[in-house]
Formats: sequence, C-alpha cells, structure tokens
Amino acid sequence: MPHSSNNPLRDPQDRRLPQIAGPCVLVIFGVTGDLSRKKLMPAVYDLANRGMLPPGFGLVGFARRDWQDQDFAKVVHDAVKENSRTPFREEVWEQLLEGIRFVPGTFDSDESFDKLKDTICELDQARGTGGNHAFYLSIPPSSFEVVVSQLKKHGLTEEEQGGWNRVVIEKPFGHDLESAKELNAVVSSLFEPQEVFRIDHYLGKETVQNMLALRFANQMFEPLWNNHYVSHVQITMAEDIGIGGRAGYYDGIGAARDVIQNHLLQLLALTAMEEPTSFEASQLRAEKQKVLAAAHVPGDLSQTTARGQYCAGWQGAQQVKGYLEEDGVDAGSSTETFAAIRVDIDNRRWAGVPFYLRAAKRMPRRVTEVALSFKRAPHLPFTATDTEELGTNALVMRIQPDEGVTLRFGAKVPGTQMEIREVSMDFAYGGSFTESSPEAYERLILDVMLGDAPLFPQQEEVELSWSILDPVLEHWAAQPDQPEPYESGTWGPQNAVDMLARDGFAWRRP
Amino acid sequence: MPHSSNNPLRDPQDRRLPQIAGPCVLVIFGVTGDLSRKKLMPAVYDLANRGMLPPGFGLVGFARRDWQDQDFAKVVHDAVKENSRTPFREEVWEQLLEGIRFVPGTFDSDESFDKLKDTICELDQARGTGGNHAFYLSIPPSSFEVVVSQLKKHGLTEEEQGGWNRVVIEKPFGHDLESAKELNAVVSSLFEPQEVFRIDHYLGKETVQNMLALRFANQMFEPLWNNHYVSHVQITMAEDIGIGGRAGYYDGIGAARDVIQNHLLQLLALTAMEEPTSFEASQLRAEKQKVLAAAHVPGDLSQTTARGQYCAGWQGAQQVKGYLEEDGVDAGSSTETFAAIRVDIDNRRWAGVPFYLRAAKRMPRRVTEVALSFKRAPHLPFTATDTEELGTNALVMRIQPDEGVTLRFGAKVPGTQMEIREVSMDFAYGGSFTESSPEAYERLILDVMLGDAPLFPQQEEVELSWSILDPVLEHWAAQPDQPEPYESGTWGPQNAVDMLARDGFAWRRP
Repeated sequence: MPHSSNNPLRDPQDRRLPQIAGPCVLVIFGVTGDLSRKKLMPAVYDLANRGMLPPGFGLVGFARRDWQDQDFAKVVHDAVKENSRTPFREEVWEQLLEGIRFVPGTFDSDESFDKLKDTICELDQARGTGGNHAFYLSIPPSSFEVVVSQLKKHGLTEEEQGGWNRVVIEKPFGHDLESAKELNAVVSSLFEPQEVFRIDHYLGKETVQNMLALRFANQMFEPLWNNHYVSHVQITMAEDIGIGGRAGYYDGIGAARDVIQNHLLQLLALTAMEEPTSFEASQLRAEKQKVLAAAHVPGDLSQTTARGQYCAGWQGAQQVKGYLEEDGVDAGSSTETFAAIRVDIDNRRWAGVPFYLRAAKRMPRRVTEVALSFKRAPHLPFTATDTEELGTNALVMRIQPDEGVTLRFGAKVPGTQMEIREVSMDFAYGGSFTESSPEAYERLILDVMLGDAPLFPQQEEVELSWSILDPVLEHWAAQPDQPEPYESGTWGPQNAVDMLARDGFAWRRP
Repeated sequence: MPHSSNNPLRDPQDRRLPQIAGPCVLVIFGVTGDLSRKKLMPAVYDLANRGMLPPGFGLVGFARRDWQDQDFAKVVHDAVKENSRTPFREEVWEQLLEGIRFVPGTFDSDESFDKLKDTICELDQARGTGGNHAFYLSIPPSSFEVVVSQLKKHGLTEEEQGGWNRVVIEKPFGHDLESAKELNAVVSSLFEPQEVFRIDHYLGKETVQNMLALRFANQMFEPLWNNHYVSHVQITMAEDIGIGGRAGYYDGIGAARDVIQNHLLQLLALTAMEEPTSFEASQLRAEKQKVLAAAHVPGDLSQTTARGQYCAGWQGAQQVKGYLEEDGVDAGSSTETFAAIRVDIDNRRWAGVPFYLRAAKRMPRRVTEVALSFKRAPHLPFTATDTEELGTNALVMRIQPDEGVTLRFGAKVPGTQMEIREVSMDFAYGGSFTESSPEAYERLILDVMLGDAPLFPQQEEVELSWSILDPVLEHWAAQPDQPEPYESGTWGPQNAVDMLARDGFAWRRP
C-alpha cells in the first residue's frame, strides 16, 4: 500500500480521483468544426465544472473567421450549453471565460502565427500557465504539415521555463501504411514520440477501460480467455445512420479505414493482449503491439473478408436513400459502408480462434460490442432434446450504448423435466454506479494535460494496424466488382453472412 | 438425436414437457397434517390442472377422523383453494373429486386397513388405475413400522395385474446414523430400494435442478469449479422465523439434524460432485455418494463447528421471544437453532477448499443460497489504491427467494483514472421465463408416479450424511455449555464469526 499523503489528489499512485491538470494553454486548430463544437469545447467545460482544470488555464481558438475573443467565447458558450454533460454553472463559465482567446487566420499566414505566439505569451503571463502548451490539431491531415511548420517557424514549440509542448492529433492517421508513415514523419520532425498524443476516442470510453478491469482485476474471466474455451470473437461497430453530410471525408475512405483500422483493432488488441505487469504506458503499449504484430487476415481474402454498400431502404419508420444517391458521393463509388474481416492471431493463447471485425452504416441499430463466444461443453450429460434450443455461452462487453456486460448461458426451463435454454445475466454500468460516466474526450483531454499516455496509441500501433489492413484494401481495390449492395436497415450483405457460415458461425444480431 | 415420435409426450427421452403420469392411486397417511394441507393436496391439484394426471387417478386420505368421503373432499377443496399455485378451475376439480376417497381409522386398526384395501380395490376398478399404488407416509417416523406392517398384513403391497407399489417417506430419516439404519430396515423389509422415494423437497426446487444445468450444460463455469480458483464455498439456509408451533418436533432435534443433514448436504453434493455421464438416477446417485463419502468435518470440532440459540430480539418491527421461552420448549433445552459446520472434501478437485454450511432460525432475512467465493487474481496489474475496495469474485446460486444467479466481480468506477469496485451481474429466474416455477412437491409427486428416481436421495446418501454429522452431534452433546445465545434478528453467535475468521473468511450477509 503506498504511503497516503495528506492530499490524496497529489498522490500519483492514487487514481481513485482524477488528478487535477497543471496550468497550461490548450490551442485548438479547427475550432469551427463539428468535433470541436460537439466534443472538445463541452469536454473542456465539463472538466472545469468537475474541478479538474487549474485556475491557470487558457483556451485559444484558431480559425479562418473574423472573430474577436468575445465572438469565439460566444461560440464556446453556445457549444457548452448545447452539448456539455454536466449542468451549466455561471461561476464556472466566468472563470473559464477569463482564459478564452481567439486568433483569426489561415494556416499559411505568418502574421496569424505571430499573433498566436503573442496570445499564448500573454496567457502565460496573465494566467501563470508555466509555459505548458497543448496544440490540438482538429484539422484534416493534409494541413498537418503546414501547421507544424508554422509552429516551428514561429518558435511556438520551444520549451520555455521548463514548460512542455504537446500535440494532439485525430484520425485518420493516413489511409494506408505508407501514408501513415509520411504523416508521422511530419509530426515527429517537430515533436518527440512522448509529446504526440493520438486520439482514438474509443480508448477514452469508460467501457473500454473497463475491459482492462474486467479481465485483469478479476479471477473468474481470465481462465476462460483463451482457445481452450473461446470458439471465436466478434467485434462489432454498427451505426444506424448513413454518412450524413460527411461524403467529402467518407467517400474513398470507407468503413475499414474509418473504423476498423483504429477503433476495432484497438478493441481487438485490448481483448486479445496478454496481461501487462502494470498499466504504465510502455507496458500496455508493448502488449498491444505484441498482439497486433501477431495478427493478420488469413488465407484467401475473398473468403475471409466481406464488404457492402447500403442502398435505399427503411431506417425504422423513415425511408432513406442509398449510398450512391447521397449528396457528394461519386455515382460509381466503390467505397464500402460495410466492412468485415477475419483476423487470426498467431500465438499460443489464440491460435485457432478467429476474431471477426465488422463495421457498418445503416444497420438496424447502433451498437458497439465485443462478444466472446465459447465452445460448447465437451460433453453434455443431458439428452439431445434437453439442450436442443441451447446456444453457446457468450460474454458480451457492450461498449455503447447500454454500456455494460452480459453473460449468455443455459438455464433450466421451469416446469420441464429437463430443458435448458439460453438466458442472460446482465451488468449495466449505469445501474451500478451513481457516478455518470465522463465523456471519452474529458478523459483524453485531461490525460493530455497530465501527460498520462496509456490511453493513446503510438505510431507503432498505427503502423501495425495498417499492416493488417493494407492487404485487404489492396485486394478490394483490385476487384472488378462493386461492394455488394445491402438494404438500409438490414444487417448487411450476403457475402458477410457466407464468410462466417464457411467457418460454421453466424453474426450476432445484438 | 433420438427418433421423435408422433406424440412428444410419449418419447421418454424428450423431457421438454413433463411426462403425464400413468393411472394410479395415491394414498396419503397423515392427511390432517400441515404438510398435506399446505403442500401435498395443492400439488396434486396443480398437477391435475396442468394436465399431468391421467383420468385414471385416485386420491385416498387416511386419518383418525370421523369423516365421510365428502368431508375429506371438502378439506382437500379448501386446501387447494387456499394453497394451490395455479388458478382454481371447477372442471378440473370435478374430475379430481370423482377419485377422492377417505378411510377413517388408526394405524393399528385391522378394520381400517381392510377398509383401505377395499377402497383401493374399488378405485382400481372404478378408475382403471392398473393396480398402481403410491403410499405417502406423511407421518412421524415412529409410526412407519406399524403402517408398513399393516400394509403387508393386509396384502396392500402385493403386485397385482403388473401394477406397482411405491412408498414415499419424508424427513427426518432418523436422528443419527444408527436410527437411520433402523428406520430403513423397517421400510426395506417390505419395499425394494427402487420402490422407496425419500422426499428432500429441496431437490424438487427448480433452482436446485438448475444447479445441474448451470454446471454441466455450460462451458464457462466448470473450468472455474475447483480449488485452483475457488477459495471457499458457503451454503446458507437462513430462516427469519422461529420454531413457531413446532416445538414438539424441533426441540431435541435442532438445526443440524433438521436442515444440514438433508437439504444442505444435498446442496453440497450437487455443488461439489463430479459430472455424471448422464442424469440417469444411478449415475447421479453414484456421484453424490462419491463426494459425500469424501467429505468430513475436519480437525478440532470446537474450531470447525459453531452453534447458537436465539434469544429475545426484534424481527423487523416485531418483538419476539427467545427459544427457551417458546411454548413447548424445555426451559433448559440445549437444542441449537443456529448450526454451522465446516466440511472438507478429500479429492483432487476440492482439497484445500472449505465448504461452510450454515442453517439458522431468526436470522434478519429468509434466504437459501450456495455461494462460491473465488480466490483473488494471482497478480493485479493495478496500483494498491486502484483495488483497495475490491472484494473477491463470487458466484451465488440463489435457491430461494429471488431465485436466480448472481456474479460479483470488479468493474471500473466511472470518472476515476482507475478504481475498481465490486458490482453484480444478475440473472433472475422469474424475469427470464414466462413460465412460473412449479412447486417442488408438484415435481416430486409426479416423479413418484412416473417412477423417475434421480431427484430422490437413496439410503446410502442418508447414511453418508449422518456419518458426516454424527461426530459433530456427539461433540456438541458432550459439551457442558449451552449453545451460545444470539439475539433474534441478527446473523448469529460470535463463535460462528470466529470460526470463519480463523480461516481468514467472513460469513456472507446475503
């Protein structure tokens, strides 16, 4: 047991309360975008409201808008009012407001970056930020190079007064292995690996972190967590929406690059990795890298992958149009809106256990989950009819929505001599804790300010993920056929059904 | 898969629907007792109502009452109306009524048994029962000998027309090993072992049968079901009532003989036994016997057993008197109303895992459960404070009330960097099946008529259970001290707390 200090918040070993960030300035590039308005600004406010931000905090917005500080403050204010998780409190807002600044300009304008530098210096002075600066690049990767160059040119990344500089980047981390390396070359030209925080917001989710608690704080799950007992694993991220207004981003990218490369392969890594000795960032990272390095899509890729594209159909009571009819989508686009791959992991624990990853839009419902399906018991001391309706056991970690854990197992049907049917045992995250779950971005932005790295994938993981996906993308690109159409509001194309059926399995309908 | 016949009810391999009993007469001795009125008569009606009784069914009551058939029928009618599980339906009752007879008399009266014989013959003719007769001895064991002799003397147990004769007996099966053997000698003088059905109504409970389904129809529990993962097991039957009007039966018997010898050791056997190859009666029996034969109360019995006697206190809002003040209890009685024993099982699976059995009256609440507590994970890759509040994993099979299964495990507390606390995952039997659970006696009476024996303990099990308990009873009898008093409405005496504390455990407060 570590020595408990007088102030438990100051004991870095005590993680029962979130640490309070030290003084710093957070600069957001791309402050007019959806992410900033819906997630980043509300998360900053929620952190302030929870007392996680120090008085010495400043928030700088940078964008091509003819705004004064107060105009930007109004934008933040509205975003917070609309999207923050915690209640709006005037006194919290007032304190936050004092540190809000705006710098208008384009990424290539030296004048704007001079202004930015002045603004940050002014904030350092006024707020006592200790020269600590985080640059959040909520902008397209194509703009990374120019912004990073400007930061360098204007001396914005030089360490002063012992302060730190960190850069936060969002997916996409490239569109294949090669481009990911190029992108990284840009960022790492200026920042050390430990200064780069790659956001995979799934890792900020409470339910994803709970996967670590579930596996490693308990005695009862880990003994089953291997190829002796698990028959296969399904990792699903289903969205019930189409691409909405995101054609410009999505078309040409598709479900595999958009979701599998990052979120789903990270979930696979957390599900399949060996136990780290501790959750120190380098330990966790090493285990994730090890398992990703052992993973690959096996065999004939036309048999172990599947893709589809939604066509018109019904989403609940609403008639929706097909992908090719969406605004901004090329009429002959071969971008997949449904992607499924089988991943095999070549190690002692998982050999012989396929992991099926599936990401799709226009599904019947929105759900992200990791489901371990267990083998049948090797012998059933029951008659065949007793267990005719019995499925296989499953452990389902529900990432969102309805966050929690479900066990499916067989129980006796009352009133029969003996009949066993599947039932569920359920743990609901929301029902068990009075604390409401912080948003992923609250945790991640706080961790950036704390310099706490375990929840951020490193470049090695990004590259390993692309190494897994690249052959699939190349295989698909080489096909003369379009992705198989599937009706909106259904669970996807036939070739995905066939893909699992060949292995003797079926997709879950969560 | 067995060949499915046209009528699934006729396929003895298909146990998804209860089998319908063949024609028979059920004779109940002791028909004026509580058990008969509260459980047996309602169960017979409920079976009829569910269509499990054939038209050729007769019910004969035998008691020292000056009743005609219709008087007895009225008693049955009232008992059914008051205590049956399923709704009262006039047409079901009318059909049942046609087969109801009463024979007045004492057990030593030849005339009465002649009358009984005539009545049964008449029913055989009138109802076409095929000469099948079940004799339910719902009477004190002291009367077994006379009744059994009379049955023999009056030719009531001779097989006729290929029919069967069966006898049903209720606990207590003796008060120690020797008396159990004597009692058995009486019954087995007239009935073959396969004709004797010993009722342990716990085995008729759906939740107890579900223990078999849970363990053996699933892949995910059995791998954990051993001394690698289980630290100890607690089997509890707590009642919130006192002895009520049962002093005549209870005083001198006590909690260990009343409950541990039968119900709790049967639950232990079902929890600890190896997997039978099938649920054929002889297989199940062999496994239960094997594990009971390997079980014993270890070491210094003053350290591995505990006993207590309730004194005055509060049961909820009601002030209640102590055991020694109860009507009919000897003022100096040393009968225990709280009994706890540690049982060790000397086999590969369970060596080193203590089973704690506890039976008690006047507890804070009524609950019967089997709880497997798991060891801590061998290494926790968390900081000490992360898991400071984390208990150990547990799997709890709730026998009654709130029938179901609960898993206790650790999950991350939302909003913390990392803190893990215990949460529950729950399966409620009532919430998962629309079918309401039949009463234990429905199942058991039906099984008697079907001749289906797996749920009835054999004499060997009874004797093995007494062999486990006898040394404890002798040890207690040799103590000069009274059982330790405990306040009504509390979880029992200090010596029980100490007993577990010595092993590093604590009793659950379910």
